[in-house]
Formats: sequence, C-alpha cells, structure tokens
Amino acid sequence: MAIETWLTRTLGIEVPIFGAPMGGRAGGTLVGEVSKAGGLGLLGAARYATPEWIADEVAIARGIGGDAFGIGLMTWALDDDDALLDAALAQNPRVVSLSFGNPAPYVDRVHDIGALVVSQVNTVEDLRVVEAAGVDVVIAQGGEAGGHTGRIGTLPLLQEILEATSLPVLAAGGIATGRGLAAVIAAGAEGAMIGTVLLASPETIGPEYARSKLIAAGSADTVYTSVFDQARSQPWPSRWGGRALRNDFTGKWHDAGAAESELATAYDPANPDLGVVYAGEAAGLVTSEQPAGEVVRRIAADAERLLTRFAK
Amino acid sequence: MAIETWLTRTLGIEVPIFGAPMGGRAGGTLVGEVSKAGGLGLLGAARYATPEWIADEVAIARGIGGDAFGIGLMTWALDDDDALLDAALAQNPRVVSLSFGNPAPYVDRVHDIGALVVSQVNTVEDLRVVEAAGVDVVIAQGGEAGGHTGRIGTLPLLQEILEATSLPVLAAGGIATGRGLAAVIAAGAEGAMIGTVLLASPETIGPEYARSKLIAAGSADTVYTSVFDQARSQPWPSRWGGRALRNDFTGKWHDAGAAESELATAYDPANPDLGVVYAGEAAGLVTSEQPAGEVVRRIAADAERLLTRFAK
Repeated sequence: MAIETWLTRTLGIEVPIFGAPMGGRAGGTLVGEVSKAGGLGLLGAARYATPEWIADEVAIARGIGGDAFGIGLMTWALDDDDALLDAALAQNPRVVSLSFGNPAPYVDRVHDIGALVVSQVNTVEDLRVVEAAGVDVVIAQGGEAGGHTGRIGTLPLLQEILEATSLPVLAAGGIATGRGLAAVIAAGAEGAMIGTVLLASPETIGPEYARSKLIAAGSADTVYTSVFDQARSQPWPSRWGGRALRNDFTGKWHDAGAAESELATAYDPANPDLGVVYAGEAAGLVTSEQPAGEVVRRIAADAERLLTRFAK
Repeated sequence: MAIETWLTRTLGIEVPIFGAPMGGRAGGTLVGEVSKAGGLGLLGAARYATPEWIADEVAIARGIGGDAFGIGLMTWALDDDDALLDAALAQNPRVVSLSFGNPAPYVDRVHDIGALVVSQVNTVEDLRVVEAAGVDVVIAQGGEAGGHTGRIGTLPLLQEILEATSLPVLAAGGIATGRGLAAVIAAGAEGAMIGTVLLASPETIGPEYARSKLIAAGSADTVYTSVFDQARSQPWPSRWGGRALRNDFTGKWHDAGAAESELATAYDPANPDLGVVYAGEAAGLVTSEQPAGEVVRRIAADAERLLTRFAK
C-alpha cells in the first residue's frame, strides 16, 4: 500500500501522483499507463489540439487505465476559444487542469460535471487568483519544471504556498524519484505532479529524438527561454517561459533578441539540434528508457519506504 | 526530542541544522545562538576576514553556545593564501566548510585536528571532486540559496546527489521552515543548512538596512548575478554567481556588460538601493525579525511533527 493522502482518498487512486498534462507529449497511451499504475494521468491538450484528438486519446487512455484520468488546458488559450473545454468536459474526466491564466470563467462548468479543478501556480500572487476563482487543488510548480513554468524553485515555493492556503496542494518541478515525492509529502503536499521523468517512456508521443536527447542530458543542460514559443508562433503570455533542453537553437537564439520571423525561419522541429525538447532539471535523473507504469510504481514504493522510517 | 540523524549523532548536536557560514553576516553572535539552540553555527570567514577577526568571533560564539561550532572558508581563496585555514584550525572547530573549489590540498590538515570537512556542491561533477578529496559530508546547495551558489534547483540536485554518493548529505537552498527541513530529511538528507531565514535575526552583522530589505522582499525578488563581485573586486571564479535581492543597482547593471571600474564607481554599500544584500528565494518566507535561536528551534520542532505523521 502506498502513501494515503487527501488526493488518493478523494480521487480513489492508489498513489499520490499526477502525470503532467504535457502538450504534444502526454497522449492517451501515457495517460492510461500512469492511471493503470495507480496514479492519475492528465492528457496534454495544447492550444492546437482538436476536439477529435481529445476524444480519440481519451478512448485510448480509458482502454488502458480506466476512468481515472484528467485533461489539462491552458487557461489563456481558452480566453480566445473555449471549444476545447467543451470537448474535454464531454469526456467526463475526474480532473481538469486550468493553468496559466485566471480560471474564473471556467470553474463552474467543470464543477457542473462533478470534476475537480486543479491549477498550477508559480507564485503566491497566482495562488490568490486561483483561490478566488474557486479551484479545488493548487499545484505549486517550481522553476525546475519542464515546459512552461515560473522562476521560483519548487522547495521554497512549496513552503510558501502551503503556508498561504488551506486548499490541498501538490508539488511539481524537479520530482523524479521516490526521494522527491517523499520530500514534498513530508513538507505537507498531498502529492506530486511528475513530467520530465515520464518523457523517456516509450508511451510518450512526439519526436523520436526527444527520448534519446533527454536520456543524454544532465540537470544543468536545460534553459528557461521564450525563443521556442516565438519560433512556433505560440502566443504564450510573456511571464511564462518554457524550460527546454539546450541545443544549437537555444545556443544561438536564446536572449539574442531576434525577430519572430527570423526565429521561425531558423526553427526546424525535425532536426534535434534545432527542434524543441521541453524538459526540466529532473533530466539529470532520467538515464534510461522506462515504461511509465514502472516509473510511477517505483516512485510511489520508494517514497513510502522513506516516509515510514520515522515511526516512533 | 528532535529528529535524530547521522549528523546529530556524529556531532552530538540536538537538531540536524547547520547555520550557513555567510561571509559578512554570520559572526560569533549568530553562530553561538544557532549552536545554543541545538544546531551548529558556522562562522562566515570571507576572503577579507583576518585571523584576529576569527579568534574574536569564535570567542563570542563559544561564550554563547559552547564548543559545537564550525568555520566556513572559500576554497578558491585559500589557493592564494591559506593563512585563514591556519587561523580557523587554531580555534579547534568541530566542522570546517571548504567550499567553492577543490578542497584536496586542505582536507588532511582539517582531519589532523579531528574536525569534519564539509563541502557545498552545486552539481554531480562537483561531488566527484570533493569525494576524491576525502571530505566527510557534502551539502547539496541549490540555486535558490542566497549568496554564491550554482543553478540547479535544490530538490532535483538533492535527489541526484543522494543517488550518486554514499557520503552523508545535507541540503541547502530555499529551506526556511519545518516543512523544508522535513522535506529534505524525508528525501534522505541528514539535515539542512539554513541561511536566508537567519538573516532577519538581530544577531546577524552587516548593514542595518539588510534586515528590513529582506523582510520586505518576496521569493521572486532575488537575482542571480556577478555584478556585486565585480563592483567589489571580489575575484570569485565566474561559475559561481551570487543570489541577492534586486535593487536599483541590479536593475541597472545586471547583465549590462559594464566594466569592473564602472561598477565599482556606481556601487555604494552604505546605500540600500546600491549596496548588496545577498539572500535566497526563502526571502518570501522571512516576514519579521526573529531571534536566531527561535528560528532554529521552530524549524526543528515543526519538522519533527511533519516527519512522524506517517508512522504505521
């Protein structure tokens, strides 16, 4: 039996682990495997996802792992077009992640289907916004996380968020082993969201080179940058950069002040040296390809051993 | 009774907390109060400290907290002149911190007086250097730390270091509450080094404005920069920047590429807007002036409560 927390009790899952809704990487197979292993996988519906893609991938996830799954959406993107929210709710997820923006306009619609709203926050100011919006769970996402995130480190941010709210809190950013999960639960979190540690799993989607690049990378081989958003014409609000593996593209263009058109011309998603591999500082802890279910089970089992050492 | 670890057993201290050897801030009074509260305070002997200063401050620390104290030195500075190591060893500390550089030339001299050598490391590569040098304890120091540090976040770095070594490990960087201490001990660390959370204590030395600036600052109000070293002609190796509170000086000069002479002219340690206040991301958790002893006792007691919750 793994560690029981508010999260496992409320969602009826076995281990307090969410699989991060990584746009372009977390499809139905990954989501299903995370849920089958006892956690809860979240489908990563990027801004450019379609309602059909969501339906197809959810069917795959359900086929593998059952009904305990979630769907992640970018709040700022819903502000332009909320069709993906309708598409997500039609699938009856247990959890909807509304992150990066103010979720207030969308929270009631999620609650109407009986799902929980979770929001990633990067500062205490973000926490106040999502609390006012009525979310059910906050995820303190530190700057070590892969993909779009803030700048404050997971450990200090988690302490701040736990002291500042009575909502259930999860931690995200730099958690890739049972040690990391044990740490955040000991601090008072109800669980962790893991992302980078799943990216070397064969169940992820996306470019083939991403896995080998991640496995070869160390924890110092990432950069927090906006150049990939600019190169791909993704209108992310400027306060959120993305943490990605360094490559020739970031070496040349990060902080170079180039125009978006110039970046778009230089970018090539088919070329490992020029395409983006979003990944966090947990890259240094990912050293081989491992099935996602094994990753989830190992992290949970190791965390349980660590947390029960201090029994008196 | 607080949490017992290798650290408390080996040093005969009550709580697994080191007070960071903050150059220019951690003098004898702070060191003595940390040790009197059950931890182990380390005197911060900056490059510009003198043997007389070390002797005077150690006498103060002993008068308050007894013989359980340590002294911190910058390894790179010893490479030019190791007189401060002799001065430190003459005081018979329990612990000598040899950080930021290769401690190999100095480890035997510390062992000869029966003291432990601890080294802060910022990467796994650093770990291999200090392991080869024969240190007794490594401190995984994350990028959230105040003052000179590396760039990898405490949580991922700590997981990496714990997986990579059989030496006892402490964590540093962003730990300012019992939640933070519980987290790193649950992960497998033998304790934590705390710095920023002590800086609002009346027992610190340094400019009067530093305390109020720190109390007013949030976790996002720091910057990792080398401009203060350049302005003060401190020959720190370029791989270590210092995390400090943002102010007018960093707003104008950080990453501006100015010459050292120009920075030196612009710098004014007597002016809060232009002087340096080294502080970590734990700044957001420091909201009032508190005696150092109370800080240490509160962190230890809170951590114990958190860690013993999972008894079966």
